[in-house]
Amino acid sequence: MLITSLQNPRIREIVRLRQGRKRRQTGKVLIDGQREVCRALRSGFPVREIYACPELMSDEAHAWMAKLPDLFEVTPDVFRKIAYGEREDGVLAVADSQEKTLDEVLDELPTDRPPLLGVLEGVEKPGNIGAILRSADGAGFSALIVADPKTDLFNPNTIRASLGTIFSVPVCTASAMEVRHALRQRGITMYAAIVDGAEHYTHADFTGPSAVILGSEAWGLTEAFRGEGIHPIFLPMLGIADSLNVSTTAAILFYEALRQRNGDSTQ
Amino acid sequence: MLITSLQNPRIREIVRLRQGRKRRQTGKVLIDGQREVCRALRSGFPVREIYACPELMSDEAHAWMAKLPDLFEVTPDVFRKIAYGEREDGVLAVADSQEKTLDEVLDELPTDRPPLLGVLEGVEKPGNIGAILRSADGAGFSALIVADPKTDLFNPNTIRASLGTIFSVPVCTASAMEVRHALRQRGITMYAAIVDGAEHYTHADFTGPSAVILGSEAWGLTEAFRGEGIHPIFLPMLGIADSLNVSTTAAILFYEALRQRNGDSTQ
Repeated sequence: MLITSLQNPRIREIVRLRQGRKRRQTGKVLIDGQREVCRALRSGFPVREIYACPELMSDEAHAWMAKLPDLFEVTPDVFRKIAYGEREDGVLAVADSQEKTLDEVLDELPTDRPPLLGVLEGVEKPGNIGAILRSADGAGFSALIVADPKTDLFNPNTIRASLGTIFSVPVCTASAMEVRHALRQRGITMYAAIVDGAEHYTHADFTGPSAVILGSEAWGLTEAFRGEGIHPIFLPMLGIADSLNVSTTAAILFYEALRQRNGDSTQ
Repeated sequence: MLITSLQNPRIREIVRLRQGRKRRQTGKVLIDGQREVCRALRSGFPVREIYACPELMSDEAHAWMAKLPDLFEVTPDVFRKIAYGEREDGVLAVADSQEKTLDEVLDELPTDRPPLLGVLEGVEKPGNIGAILRSADGAGFSALIVADPKTDLFNPNTIRASLGTIFSVPVCTASAMEVRHALRQRGITMYAAIVDGAEHYTHADFTGPSAVILGSEAWGLTEAFRGEGIHPIFLPMLGIADSLNVSTTAAILFYEALRQRNGDSTQ
């Protein structure tokens, strides 16, 4: 089916879905980009409609699209109306939001190895959450939990910055207190990254069931992730700045956990 | 001195300096933000003019500004005309560009420990270069070399993303071949991050004089950093994506180098 009109009801609905409020009301998610849509489909995410603009697509995307049963073809004008910013590779999808609960994510953790979890508290920028998902995917983390979220989990910017890894890494949201309670109950050691943390991050033992907990760059972690049962760790800062970007901190800690597990140390 | 007119010649000149071409012609640099200007001043960077808008400044900035000998006070309207995007904390400076040569940077390397260098080839986004400077600062790297630069070294976006660490970490630009030649001549081991690199990054030995070399996300490294004398290293990618963001990769490698040097391993 070819859509040529900017006033087509489906097109107008997608424009409305750019608003977070509208996405929450309808339980829908927008996925921008061929790679991201492809990863959503491969992961079995409930993609409902795919919009493709042949004039804007790469040859590779053409070949891939040809295999899909049905999609809406749109003109370049129509695509530019629904596309996100300059993200114009000609592919966009509407999916149902599929948020798991905290318990579902924890119940489904792999049992062949001790779980490694990432926990973000109050991280505001979807781009940071997306970047952290990309590192979680690379380091083989079991799941990412967003505590006290500031945006919708499947925000288009999060999906985009994650390059679609949000569809392969198990993710969920919950309140900070629920997360702390659940992790403690399941015997998962909680390491919280704090600028003035007590323990050097390489001295933390990530070989057992572990969670790496990160707060927002502006505000750090709240009381929910301080105190009894929480191990505050720090990264050395040898220069003039006193902290790294939260997604940078996450990447260093995630790969340190992986390094300890692989025993891939030179020392 | 108070500037109230949007047509003031100094104000018009700053607006022109938002263009890279104009900065190159004049050898000037724009520094946005109180923290960044403060770090430039502390590092002895040749700041020539400071523009401050009291109505937009924090109390802390007021107290700090009061100590400066002379600056131009501007109205909120004037500040918004010269400010970068939404970066409105009321402080902006014009400085002379102070680019060192590759030889100067290498000659001035600290001699109390084996140098650790970051090298970026063809990295396009100023935001990535700035983020990498922040990690280099944190991990105590000796210098960052931008080979075959795609933007001006002191691009306002680079300064901003670096949070001003660009003024504390020695930086320079040079051609890729010059960099390779100079590093080899000085006996600095070159580790190049390559998706299909031969050696696991934790097996690289960063305890001697070392350079961590990174290419652009889109194109990777050119022939200049492949072949004889270059050690290709890789980061494990356990998920569905095949690479990390270049600034993420840099952070993981920089902190691995620091970890090896501190002997801060749990294993």
